[in-house]
Amino acid sequence: MAIKFYDLAGKEGLRFSPYGWRARMALLHKGLEAEWIPVKFTDKDKIAFSGQGKVPIIVDGDTVVSDSFEIAAYLDKAYPDGAALFAGEWDLETTRAWNDQVTKATLPALAKIIVGDVFEAIEPCDQDYFRETREKAFGKTMEQLKGEGDQHRDGLFAAFESIRQKLGDKPFLGGETPLYADYVVFGGLQWAHCASPRTLLGEEDVIEQWRQRMLDLFGGHARAAPCSAAA
Amino acid sequence: MAIKFYDLAGKEGLRFSPYGWRARMALLHKGLEAEWIPVKFTDKDKIAFSGQGKVPIIVDGDTVVSDSFEIAAYLDKAYPDGAALFAGEWDLETTRAWNDQVTKATLPALAKIIVGDVFEAIEPCDQDYFRETREKAFGKTMEQLKGEGDQHRDGLFAAFESIRQKLGDKPFLGGETPLYADYVVFGGLQWAHCASPRTLLGEEDVIEQWRQRMLDLFGGHARAAPCSAAA
Repeated sequence: MAIKFYDLAGKEGLRFSPYGWRARMALLHKGLEAEWIPVKFTDKDKIAFSGQGKVPIIVDGDTVVSDSFEIAAYLDKAYPDGAALFAGEWDLETTRAWNDQVTKATLPALAKIIVGDVFEAIEPCDQDYFRETREKAFGKTMEQLKGEGDQHRDGLFAAFESIRQKLGDKPFLGGETPLYADYVVFGGLQWAHCASPRTLLGEEDVIEQWRQRMLDLFGGHARAAPCSAAA
Repeated sequence: MAIKFYDLAGKEGLRFSPYGWRARMALLHKGLEAEWIPVKFTDKDKIAFSGQGKVPIIVDGDTVVSDSFEIAAYLDKAYPDGAALFAGEWDLETTRAWNDQVTKATLPALAKIIVGDVFEAIEPCDQDYFRETREKAFGKTMEQLKGEGDQHRDGLFAAFESIRQKLGDKPFLGGETPLYADYVVFGGLQWAHCASPRTLLGEEDVIEQWRQRMLDLFGGHARAAPCSAAA
């Protein structure tokens, strides 16, 4: 039976959640089939069974796992025959720290640029909720946030510097093949790619070159996903 | 031909350098024979060939490598058939960050306690150099440092907290078997163990229980090393 994958749903089949993309790439990496169950921001009742209020969530038989990192950790333990997401227990712990660090450093840097675009990429019934929570978080109106998005692009290159250093001249952070460490970073960029029409990184940036390799994985799955921007 | 291993020498065959222990455990982990070449603090001429002024250094045929982390990285690449010190390229990068973090967090916490003991564990001809550099670094006389060592023991438990969390209930940081991440931490504790008669961690501390497992590795190599204290 396929794993049930509760993931955020925008308008017109858009799926842009950075955490959703982390979990989605982890499922693909393990070669596991998953049935997408779309969840809008205001669909809180639909996921109440999980005992918390956020997607992504997977349901695998009797097992319910929420939090993208915990989903990846679960999949690697439950399906040891598939390609490994973590190179052992120590790598799982250091990648957990990496996950927290990248989430804190890159997602806010991306959010400042694209939050107004995300507002346009969600269902109208979610817009009041999104406006209220984001205007409170940023201390600005949605219209101000949308208008000033491009002003924050200068900070983006720097936000990826520690990732650029760790990547070096390797094809993937994991080396010749990707590990979950790669999906942690990719989730944020795919969030921006699917929800925003803005081009964020220059073609000469090694992070952009790596992103193109990530888009090619699994038969070009992420490249083929409905997006607001051209890859 | 055995690898030449230039490592710090104290008095009476004592070898306590935390960086030396990291490299020494890495050599043992790889199952490599090494010939110890003792280097006192003031033996700068003896290692001038390396183009820098610090031990440990290894000479493997025509290859000279200094810096304990670089030595481990070199050994894992040059001897891929031996047990791995790093679980792949990504792990090497995250362990490099771990190496820097542990060095900054735990070695100064240990130094405050044991620096006066280290002064007693070195050759008399090194004591002027050691006194001058350490008194300058700490801003106190060697006698003051030795006298106040025990006052700094309270901070030691906290300095190991992030390591304790990453260890969890696993036998080693690496999981069922150690990785270089383990030797990074062990180097500091073996420094204290070989150069100081003080007992630093309580028997109920999981870090102390892990340290006992580390002392048992490779036929009890580290346990059998000449030390100022009983294991």
